Amino acid sequence: MSDQLIIFDTTLRDGEQSPGASMTRDEKLRIARQLERMRVNVIEAGFAAASNGDFEAVRSIAEAITESTVCSLARANENDIRRAGEAIAPAAMGRIHTFIATSPIHMEKKLRMSPDQVVEQAVKAIRWAAEYTDDIEFSAEDAGRSEIDFLCRIFDAVIKAGARTINVPDTVGYNVPDQFAATIRSLIERVPDADKVVWSVHCHNDLGLAVANSLAAVQAGARQVECTINGLGERAGNASLEEIVMAVRTRRDVFKCDTRIDTTQIVPASKLVSGVTGFPVQPNKAIVGANAFSHESGIHQDGVLKHRETYEIMRAEDVGWGANKLVLGKHSGRNAFRSRLQEIGIVIDSEEQLNNAFTRFKELADKKHEIFDEDLHAMMSDDFTTPEQEHYRLVASRFHSETGETPEASITLSAGGKEIHASAEGSGPVDAAFKAIESVAKSGTELLLYSVNAITTGTDAQGEVTVRLAREGRIVNGQGADTDIIVASAKAYLNALNKLHDNVQRLNPQV
Amino acid sequence: MSDQLIIFDTTLRDGEQSPGASMTRDEKLRIARQLERMRVNVIEAGFAAASNGDFEAVRSIAEAITESTVCSLARANENDIRRAGEAIAPAAMGRIHTFIATSPIHMEKKLRMSPDQVVEQAVKAIRWAAEYTDDIEFSAEDAGRSEIDFLCRIFDAVIKAGARTINVPDTVGYNVPDQFAATIRSLIERVPDADKVVWSVHCHNDLGLAVANSLAAVQAGARQVECTINGLGERAGNASLEEIVMAVRTRRDVFKCDTRIDTTQIVPASKLVSGVTGFPVQPNKAIVGANAFSHESGIHQDGVLKHRETYEIMRAEDVGWGANKLVLGKHSGRNAFRSRLQEIGIVIDSEEQLNNAFTRFKELADKKHEIFDEDLHAMMSDDFTTPEQEHYRLVASRFHSETGETPEASITLSAGGKEIHASAEGSGPVDAAFKAIESVAKSGTELLLYSVNAITTGTDAQGEVTVRLAREGRIVNGQGADTDIIVASAKAYLNALNKLHDNVQRLNPQV
Repeated sequence: MSDQLIIFDTTLRDGEQSPGASMTRDEKLRIARQLERMRVNVIEAGFAAASNGDFEAVRSIAEAITESTVCSLARANENDIRRAGEAIAPAAMGRIHTFIATSPIHMEKKLRMSPDQVVEQAVKAIRWAAEYTDDIEFSAEDAGRSEIDFLCRIFDAVIKAGARTINVPDTVGYNVPDQFAATIRSLIERVPDADKVVWSVHCHNDLGLAVANSLAAVQAGARQVECTINGLGERAGNASLEEIVMAVRTRRDVFKCDTRIDTTQIVPASKLVSGVTGFPVQPNKAIVGANAFSHESGIHQDGVLKHRETYEIMRAEDVGWGANKLVLGKHSGRNAFRSRLQEIGIVIDSEEQLNNAFTRFKELADKKHEIFDEDLHAMMSDDFTTPEQEHYRLVASRFHSETGETPEASITLSAGGKEIHASAEGSGPVDAAFKAIESVAKSGTELLLYSVNAITTGTDAQGEVTVRLAREGRIVNGQGADTDIIVASAKAYLNALNKLHDNVQRLNPQV
Repeated sequence: MSDQLIIFDTTLRDGEQSPGASMTRDEKLRIARQLERMRVNVIEAGFAAASNGDFEAVRSIAEAITESTVCSLARANENDIRRAGEAIAPAAMGRIHTFIATSPIHMEKKLRMSPDQVVEQAVKAIRWAAEYTDDIEFSAEDAGRSEIDFLCRIFDAVIKAGARTINVPDTVGYNVPDQFAATIRSLIERVPDADKVVWSVHCHNDLGLAVANSLAAVQAGARQVECTINGLGERAGNASLEEIVMAVRTRRDVFKCDTRIDTTQIVPASKLVSGVTGFPVQPNKAIVGANAFSHESGIHQDGVLKHRETYEIMRAEDVGWGANKLVLGKHSGRNAFRSRLQEIGIVIDSEEQLNNAFTRFKELADKKHEIFDEDLHAMMSDDFTTPEQEHYRLVASRFHSETGETPEASITLSAGGKEIHASAEGSGPVDAAFKAIESVAKSGTELLLYSVNAITTGTDAQGEVTVRLAREGRIVNGQGADTDIIVASAKAYLNALNKLHDNVQRLNPQV
């Protein structure tokens, strides 16, 4: 058994399926670059057949990434697999990940296929995939509730057909560790040629056991774990990459393997994903929560802590805490600005884009003394909304609120290139701003979530606002950052409306 | 072995030790009442010897709660135990939980005691505790890194002295499930009279394994789990109560036991704790995250989900999702208001308090059409800051921001009963408001966190703001709610300053 544990990140595929976590192509590219920098082995970039947007996102990532394998998901049908094959074609290392359901309930109710038909379809899928790449992964959807004899049979068939990685997902998060480990151990013992493939697991967190189930499987012989940054994913999410990696590293005595991950990139990756999706990380989240390392929280416990190692099993520096120090101020030059952007993984495509970004940086530096990496990420998130997609844009605004009076907002918007002025009253200035925007946009959306985080600390911190809107079952997040929270709110609302203009329908495979 | 799993909630003790999560006595009482309503077996209400404030909080909870056992933590010394005994004296059922460190590193570096001295001290502690109650729990701090022979010796001694519950904490979150289960199994086999006590575990989540370790211990024979709402607790927190309870219930086939918890109270408890501490719950948190049940998220997946049960192992209703419906509006009367407060666990002590609350409710109803339970919680959180503690109060405010101008705030404060006017400019209206307040308060604090959440959905939702301030190592959270986000921010800042006036020093035991 190899002593390398392969880290397969599916933040961009399973993670992105979380309601409200959908990402633009540019956001996906930025995350992919951070995953590559972290030395993730495999990046599942999307589900190419789901939409043209997904196809383009997978293809862009395949073009940009050279150090990690780029993978697309595909159902076990010819169209899906050909789309996946085309999307990963530019990759230095490309993988097709195909799946079909194997549990009685799914075969009967979802696929309406007999077990024989399911095996036959899986084998066909591997053969189509082999036209594009040797690196083929096969998943048995809802393996956690499948019969083990049938799993052995289908795995044997797909290995013979050319699958190199066999993934066992616990699709509905129903398993417990010792039982899941026994399943993996039994599969590895019973499937012929089990030693010729990498065994993989993909666990969901409905009962809070995704990480524990994955690690139990590693002890049983699995050598790939599918996971996401911050445990993002449908419902209660997937296994957290950061917890898997640090558990294996901290307890090498138990797990007898290690990953190639650069752990100092973990916290930056967590912040990037949290910023892009607008999903906060709770302070008590393991590894990446703001309180996860007590000496990061600013508390002094001199009376209790005589020796720090008494309570410390990992060092905060090792996972990237404290790495994002103050970097830039209002006197920083263009070169310093450009090279810091590169260091934190933001790629600038043209001189014009750099000029625009630098102008905005200077504006921000006028309002805020110290510019942190988080500020740059927020600023560039705004910037990556390219003008083509930007139907609505905030031109100017004025807000007033006073005890005893109704708060009011006046806003000048550019809508499809035309300037429109609107004003409204509301229960607060944010409500007034949204009402003024809606008097122009008439979007018919429902506001599902409104949240604000200070991007850095201090009273002159920028506020980053996330607004989640829903219309006819479609959910989008909009983000906006500004030192003025009302302006940030208006920008976030407009950003969400702009995303609704891009009318893509999505499919959500359950692997 | 009993088939009842005892749920020991330590949200109010270990949870409250999280930096920034400290609670007032009234906040603790409200949470205790919700825990009782949820049918938690044991409520660890605090650490009575830590401060007079902690003592009073434990005592108030002991007076108020009748259906759950009320417990105080105590180090293994006479003073701590007598304070704990006095604090729990009014309880219908009272427990003393005493602890001492048993790992070589802790005995040598923290306690500076020999193993013999540690055993002797532990036995003395049990005898002091027995003067107050029969219900005595003993914890071996850092048991996860202690020698098993020594654990057997000290447990044998304290059981003979009268301990009825033996708790095995994984203080630094270093264990993995199969190994931790083996420890518990071995202790139960080796300690004489092991069958006369309840075995308990207390796991920390540094590697993301607190729930899995606790559940593995249950499989090995533990019948008490110490846990917290939302997994709150120092660093990465404790095992999540909601995940433990739902895993045991959903997989009764594996765990062979169940709890007495009323699971429909789980989501209300989660929201209450999140609101009081200002710690958000991430959307992908198991059980209590907003996305944990996909059909709660508002997304329609008709093309994929042919039968809902295909992907569902728990029902959202069973954990209390969807229970907090619209209840009140501007035409609701005083009786409806009072009875709804009672139903959601807010106890009104006097007619005067009810009158004040009802006036504020009517003011809110004028600004906001639909009043949800969350609005009532937020409104009453403000209200529970009694006038004695309120050094600073917001009298009036005026905010203005406009593109091209510097945002400004004018504020009238009452400070110690005296009205003071101040105004300031800032990088945004919130910054300007905080600067105006600081020009009066000159608190010398650092702003660690600023966050806002819409309490309910819709554009006229109230904003609930949390402000975390630090001064000389002391950290406080302030909360404020208003439909105007700037006003809510100013209230939150003043609330935090008022808490800093209460100058309690705290001890943080590491169990």
